[in-house]
Amino acid sequence: MAKAIFGVDLGGTTVKLGLFDTEGNALDKWEIPTRKEENGKNILPDIAQSVKEKMSEKGYAGSDVAGIGIGVPGPVDSAGTIYKAANLGWGVMNINDELGALTGLTVKAGNDANVAALGEMWKGGGQGYRNMVAVTLGTGVGGGIIVDGQLLAGATGAGGEIGHIHVNDEEEDACGCGNHGCLEQYASATGVVRLAKKALAESDRDSVLRSGELSAKSVFDAVKAGDALAMEVAEKFGEYLGKGLASVACVVNPEIFVIGGGVSKAGPVLLDYIEKYYKPYVFHGSRDAKFALATLGNDAGIYGAARLVLS
Amino acid sequence: MAKAIFGVDLGGTTVKLGLFDTEGNALDKWEIPTRKEENGKNILPDIAQSVKEKMSEKGYAGSDVAGIGIGVPGPVDSAGTIYKAANLGWGVMNINDELGALTGLTVKAGNDANVAALGEMWKGGGQGYRNMVAVTLGTGVGGGIIVDGQLLAGATGAGGEIGHIHVNDEEEDACGCGNHGCLEQYASATGVVRLAKKALAESDRDSVLRSGELSAKSVFDAVKAGDALAMEVAEKFGEYLGKGLASVACVVNPEIFVIGGGVSKAGPVLLDYIEKYYKPYVFHGSRDAKFALATLGNDAGIYGAARLVLS
Repeated sequence: MAKAIFGVDLGGTTVKLGLFDTEGNALDKWEIPTRKEENGKNILPDIAQSVKEKMSEKGYAGSDVAGIGIGVPGPVDSAGTIYKAANLGWGVMNINDELGALTGLTVKAGNDANVAALGEMWKGGGQGYRNMVAVTLGTGVGGGIIVDGQLLAGATGAGGEIGHIHVNDEEEDACGCGNHGCLEQYASATGVVRLAKKALAESDRDSVLRSGELSAKSVFDAVKAGDALAMEVAEKFGEYLGKGLASVACVVNPEIFVIGGGVSKAGPVLLDYIEKYYKPYVFHGSRDAKFALATLGNDAGIYGAARLVLS
Repeated sequence: MAKAIFGVDLGGTTVKLGLFDTEGNALDKWEIPTRKEENGKNILPDIAQSVKEKMSEKGYAGSDVAGIGIGVPGPVDSAGTIYKAANLGWGVMNINDELGALTGLTVKAGNDANVAALGEMWKGGGQGYRNMVAVTLGTGVGGGIIVDGQLLAGATGAGGEIGHIHVNDEEEDACGCGNHGCLEQYASATGVVRLAKKALAESDRDSVLRSGELSAKSVFDAVKAGDALAMEVAEKFGEYLGKGLASVACVVNPEIFVIGGGVSKAGPVLLDYIEKYYKPYVFHGSRDAKFALATLGNDAGIYGAARLVLS
């Protein structure tokens, strides 16, 4: 029998788990809660327990399983050491070793955004490419860089932190990271709302955005309905993101950018705004990079975690 | 006997060649002219001829040689295909195959700036590191990215083109690449002179830069002599370069930046100006990256080319 792989996506409230074959077919999918109390000391034992139960349910011996891949919310280097996961209460530890000791299985850990990128390359919007940048436009802006089919973790696991590329010299508000003018301040879900609020405050012009709750979704819905003010917000969003991704391309020269996260639910119109501003800022050698939407949604993490075991 | 390696640095006027052992000790070093006539059709045969002559001089059989590494002035992908070398008159071709057929030896080709980076990692300013960004401040600004000990070539060989990262929204002059506000417009030797000319034109203030020939060297000599206007130019240089390298760090999270090229002859003062502006713009996960000067000078290319054979 072909070996099975566990893919684990460790989040702040829920641990998503998936069982895959080596071709990337999902055989099973389930969730357990993330128990963060006592500095998260139960998290890895809970995952180990859940994996063992699934193995027993399926009648798998250890030799039937290629390993466990796991994406975690913090910087992880290529050896599986996590440097900080404030969210989980964890200090520095080697996840490959810890979870390996608990399960007797081979474990490969990576940063969650990076791992999700690997998932999109394997079975999502980046299928067929080996040089890819995944961009997650969620509460923040995350990135995952894949070079020649391998994740770029970085020296201290901070590779692909593209949300903190500086794109605006004029910014007066601080980013969550403490700097000013980070890409995340304009291209995240929060960033889009921020741009919209500023645009609304700067004039008295009519806009459907003046009524109802303001969100990245409502902004791009208004764009699709032809709302002029919302379209100006989208231009600014596109300019900051296009410019930032042009810088990324000057460094890693990818074949494709795969755009995911909540904001990406706006659909193809989003790519138009990004590409419009990407092209004039990028070096010609990277001008033909493609742009695509992510397709795996919340499952990108478990797919990528499983793929990590094969790399 | 330990195998020998040829390292070749192909430039627009001269081909530098070196013979190394696998530990990176230089056994010999020589040059031949680059014959660019007839679309550069003699260049690879000339190199092959020179390698064969050296093998015969040393009494080497093919089995005594691990291979030939070669750095070329154009984008080269990880399989050795060069996409364009306007300088040499070359079209698209696979250098590994072509030079391999001419010599019967294993050949590995890379972009010259990337290959020089590998040399600095092996035997220069980046010795002991595996995640490094080499920055060459010459006529232009080149870059070489090394991730986990491997060169990052990029999808079309345009990885590490950090001179074309956009760092200034206000720029009205075009960069050589056609864009506006590229890092190269401020941090290259030409860029430093440009900044100095602007500063001199903007006021009537005294400065030693008002007499004699203006060059990156004269600007940094004036900085060391305490010339106020030159120091302001150095601040601007540091701000653009520090900001640009902060973006690079957000993408690849290196352990160290190694600064080389003609401008780097200014010495350690240069690093002070860069680091001053790097730190406030960079994501905290990359804030502790080190800065060092390149040490191999014009030999970085032949060292790196030889190292390419081992990777």
